[in-house]
Amino acid sequence: MKSDKISEAVVRRLPVYLRFLNDLNKREISTVSSQELGQKLDLNPAQIRKDLAYFGDFGRKGIGYDVPYLIEKIRHILKLDQPINVALVGAGNLGHALSNYNAYLKDTMKITAVFDAYEPKVGQKIHSLTVQPMSELQETVRSQGIRIGIITVPDQEAQNVADLLIEAGIEAILNFAPVILKTPPYVRVHAADFTTDLQSLAYYLQDGKEEEPNEQ
Amino acid sequence: MKSDKISEAVVRRLPVYLRFLNDLNKREISTVSSQELGQKLDLNPAQIRKDLAYFGDFGRKGIGYDVPYLIEKIRHILKLDQPINVALVGAGNLGHALSNYNAYLKDTMKITAVFDAYEPKVGQKIHSLTVQPMSELQETVRSQGIRIGIITVPDQEAQNVADLLIEAGIEAILNFAPVILKTPPYVRVHAADFTTDLQSLAYYLQDGKEEEPNEQ
Repeated sequence: MKSDKISEAVVRRLPVYLRFLNDLNKREISTVSSQELGQKLDLNPAQIRKDLAYFGDFGRKGIGYDVPYLIEKIRHILKLDQPINVALVGAGNLGHALSNYNAYLKDTMKITAVFDAYEPKVGQKIHSLTVQPMSELQETVRSQGIRIGIITVPDQEAQNVADLLIEAGIEAILNFAPVILKTPPYVRVHAADFTTDLQSLAYYLQDGKEEEPNEQ
Repeated sequence: MKSDKISEAVVRRLPVYLRFLNDLNKREISTVSSQELGQKLDLNPAQIRKDLAYFGDFGRKGIGYDVPYLIEKIRHILKLDQPINVALVGAGNLGHALSNYNAYLKDTMKITAVFDAYEPKVGQKIHSLTVQPMSELQETVRSQGIRIGIITVPDQEAQNVADLLIEAGIEAILNFAPVILKTPPYVRVHAADFTTDLQSLAYYLQDGKEEEPNEQ
């Protein structure tokens, strides 16, 4: 199983499967078919079978997928069965909101440090974390073995923050600033700009319906 | 050009192209090749040519794409050349952060109303918007012709808010709550849960590097 063999589209769907499977597991449902998965996730069942087949032969004909086993497999594929520390840079509204998600990251992935360049923010508490100055970034990333950085700073500061994170040894970046970062090829960057989410949604609006609300 | 003929993956890439093209346009660069686009966006040039070919024959061999023309075309395809009003439900940290993005939505897509169920939040100002009570949702969605709803409420409230938005006539939802919403087929839902972004990033981390920071 080689990273570069699996398309990003598939990798991006796996956490969505995982979320739904965790939900089933909580409700003590132990098997699920690709049809059921497809219906819930608005995906073609054949696509789901194909996605999961990349990682081995999980399903059994006429029975479906074993939920706890599939959860374990996807967690392993996504490296969620090992501790991964995450640094967040930018303690504004978005930074605060993302820190709230720590509760959902039940896995071993956790935001363990928060940084901000703005002096009055330093020392503030966000849940169990204390906002640190940028001057401590390098040392903290190294000492905590932080591997992923989340950027939630204003767009004009994003490239500078990315450079600092990469210099400190980070391997992957989730970038919420609406700019395209210049990074070396060994650093994986995902853009999490919500404007692109919103813009792709607009595509699905019906034509010529601006003036009349939907009456269903 | 029929909506259901173009895959969601393509539709989701178009805003990314648009962002980069807008950036070129600001720098007064008037043509771009699929090679350059591919390099900047970490995508195969052939994939880009294929994506754009869905919508007509934009490129010219040996010259590339005309930047302003391509911007106009993508904006039209994404319906960004018509006014689209957006409602945001949930005026917490995330709601505040998203309202900040209004400045980036230079297009005619705009958050025009913010709602919250929590009494003390009602009446608060977020930039030029005033937080309204949930009781005003139905009426405001209709009177402003709002077509897209953004959900940034706690997960246990998300389904209820989705139901209210749909009842009010919304056509598409961007859902930030980490739950899977049950919605009728004529309402398009995109999940914007950042945990899935983060989990798919972990896939790209190198194996067995937990303890040693990257020294490049």
